[in-house]
Amino acid sequence: MKHTEGGVCAALGFSANGIHCGIRKNKTKRDLSLILSDVAASAAGVYTTNLVKGAPLLVTRSHVEGGKIRAVICNSGNANTCNANGKEVALETCRELAARLDAPVGEIAVASTGVIGLPLSPDPIVHGMDELISGLRKDSVGSSLAAEGIMTTDTKKKETAVEFIAGGKVCRIGGIAKGSGMIHPNMATMLVFITSDVSISPEALQKALSGCVSDTFNMISVDGDTSTNDMVLVLANGMAGNAEITGESDDFEAFREALFDVMSRLCRMIAADGEGASRLLECRVHGAKDKETARLAAKSVISSSLLKAAMFGADANWGRVLCAIGYSGADIDVSSVGIAFESRAGRIDVCKNGLGVAFSEDEAKKILLESEIIIDVSLGRGKGNAIAWGCDLTYDYVRINGDYRT
Amino acid sequence: MKHTEGGVCAALGFSANGIHCGIRKNKTKRDLSLILSDVAASAAGVYTTNLVKGAPLLVTRSHVEGGKIRAVICNSGNANTCNANGKEVALETCRELAARLDAPVGEIAVASTGVIGLPLSPDPIVHGMDELISGLRKDSVGSSLAAEGIMTTDTKKKETAVEFIAGGKVCRIGGIAKGSGMIHPNMATMLVFITSDVSISPEALQKALSGCVSDTFNMISVDGDTSTNDMVLVLANGMAGNAEITGESDDFEAFREALFDVMSRLCRMIAADGEGASRLLECRVHGAKDKETARLAAKSVISSSLLKAAMFGADANWGRVLCAIGYSGADIDVSSVGIAFESRAGRIDVCKNGLGVAFSEDEAKKILLESEIIIDVSLGRGKGNAIAWGCDLTYDYVRINGDYRT
Repeated sequence: MKHTEGGVCAALGFSANGIHCGIRKNKTKRDLSLILSDVAASAAGVYTTNLVKGAPLLVTRSHVEGGKIRAVICNSGNANTCNANGKEVALETCRELAARLDAPVGEIAVASTGVIGLPLSPDPIVHGMDELISGLRKDSVGSSLAAEGIMTTDTKKKETAVEFIAGGKVCRIGGIAKGSGMIHPNMATMLVFITSDVSISPEALQKALSGCVSDTFNMISVDGDTSTNDMVLVLANGMAGNAEITGESDDFEAFREALFDVMSRLCRMIAADGEGASRLLECRVHGAKDKETARLAAKSVISSSLLKAAMFGADANWGRVLCAIGYSGADIDVSSVGIAFESRAGRIDVCKNGLGVAFSEDEAKKILLESEIIIDVSLGRGKGNAIAWGCDLTYDYVRINGDYRT
Repeated sequence: MKHTEGGVCAALGFSANGIHCGIRKNKTKRDLSLILSDVAASAAGVYTTNLVKGAPLLVTRSHVEGGKIRAVICNSGNANTCNANGKEVALETCRELAARLDAPVGEIAVASTGVIGLPLSPDPIVHGMDELISGLRKDSVGSSLAAEGIMTTDTKKKETAVEFIAGGKVCRIGGIAKGSGMIHPNMATMLVFITSDVSISPEALQKALSGCVSDTFNMISVDGDTSTNDMVLVLANGMAGNAEITGESDDFEAFREALFDVMSRLCRMIAADGEGASRLLECRVHGAKDKETARLAAKSVISSSLLKAAMFGADANWGRVLCAIGYSGADIDVSSVGIAFESRAGRIDVCKNGLGVAFSEDEAKKILLESEIIIDVSLGRGKGNAIAWGCDLTYDYVRINGDYRT
């Protein structure tokens, strides 16, 4: 497996584009994106567990259940959620795009992100479609334009891609993502669109996706708020020419590993670009009695507002790490907990056997002033381990969210 | 029942004091408090469910289990938690105080609040004891001094008291509290000391306390972090002269109602003085299918970082209220949810049947600029209701917690 360029256009047979269609007032901000496969692709998705679900999510879920998707269309600036005619608007978007692509309506996936409860007019989307389609590109520029069109409070585009071998053929997986606030996914997350040219059945694709979600997107948190519109879609169009993957096999494992790599890299990008974030936090828990215990502890640590604020201040306040593990619900023995902070600037032990150890505040400060911080937690109880990603809590998070709608 | 003055000194036979003993560097900040009953009082307590528990909490819990307490001593500036000799220091504090009061060691309750994992020397506490005892006062000044001595990042003293009738006698209940950050109690909370001169058995007292906790302290959140040192203690010394309350009765109900009033008023004070808070948020949920569903929904709303930041910005972003209800775990029907914002400046409906309704942004802004905001949520499913209290998320929360230890 190796890293490559091109995002969602890295995989053969995919093109993408992003334009400003007029949902947003700011004309320099793209607000409509399209990802198209030359042929109908196997599709799989995971979606938010929030009981309040965006209308586009409901439409897309029913289309993905058909197993095949040709195109994904996504607008930013309006979540099309809690609107009386939300489902109608999402369906109209699919119908209009399907007609232009000469594809069945059921092969269109639709997504929206932005403010909740603001009526969405389909007009700018429909009017923009011809420009959107005519500008489709198969290169990395196409992927970048699409990645831009789905951004809301994101400050950076989020794209990645890898190559791997299945059935003797070079295959590719690439993805784009958006997500900066309302990030605390449960079973799925924000908007992530992943493409691959591997040949794989929809069932095997869904299995690979679902298997990767619990250790990737379900392990990040920016603010503890599980969105209404989270979704991860994977399209695989088979153009790499490998023999179709239909179940557990070496090829399935190669694909799963590559997919996991793409997903975990997108996770780090989303956490690092959390609203207002100045630091990426990675909590590595090991020595837990089982995997689930490790996940609980790791996610609790990176979700703690107090710890997040301390990390913003580069303050080695490890008591907040221990406190967050203590209320996480994880079954642990406090007297065997060890904690260290680590970054490119070094590593420092701050707690052993549940008790503080003397450490140099200067050295700790140096380590914590880096942009990527590892919080290493050892539970001393077994072999379970997990990693969770988050970010610090800064003045800018408050500023961004104090007046998001205007 | 009527409101009265005097805090923990409102009840007959209680005296209190607070001094600077030297745990804190700032000599103008009191850091050691004492509440004393003339006679041994029936005692009851509830404590944090965090697996990491402060050493003083463990000592106090075992003493309260004896049923009788004479005095509560509490320091601020150091939580005496995750220290190798923490229990020893807490016990030494009890022993030294017991000797001076000529009371059994088992009748002393001890508490600490401040930084976790910093060794606590007993020296300043022991040296300060004579001054602490000689300055005890039975008036409202004594209560205020004690309330000051337990403050950490609190900006306001938290005291309240009521009078009620039991067995034909006037009885009193008063309380002091501290709590500003690391506030998201589960089964108990921060530090709350409540005194009463009612005559009641320890068993009946514990029953009244435990019954009130789930709708008071367990319903507030400042930052989602459940502290390691939370505790609520109630002492009742019987000096009001009523016939002892030993179980369910009209007198028990009168006491329970008065206790609930004291506890819920302290809750509002703690939430309003949440770290950095500029607004008190009160989420009232009604029409839930049962009480527990209402509690889940209400607590989820006031815990949402996104909603808290929106309230700071006086932004009527009701989508975040609906989103928080959706991920709360409460069993609800989205299509029957109604939301209104309310304050002294008026009331405005923003969502009906799970969908947005047109409203005046100017009017909403006027309502949300007040210092106490009610978020009224109607679930339209039954008779369950609950209230939760929280505060907005401000720049000052980040500032306070970015460098708490120094």
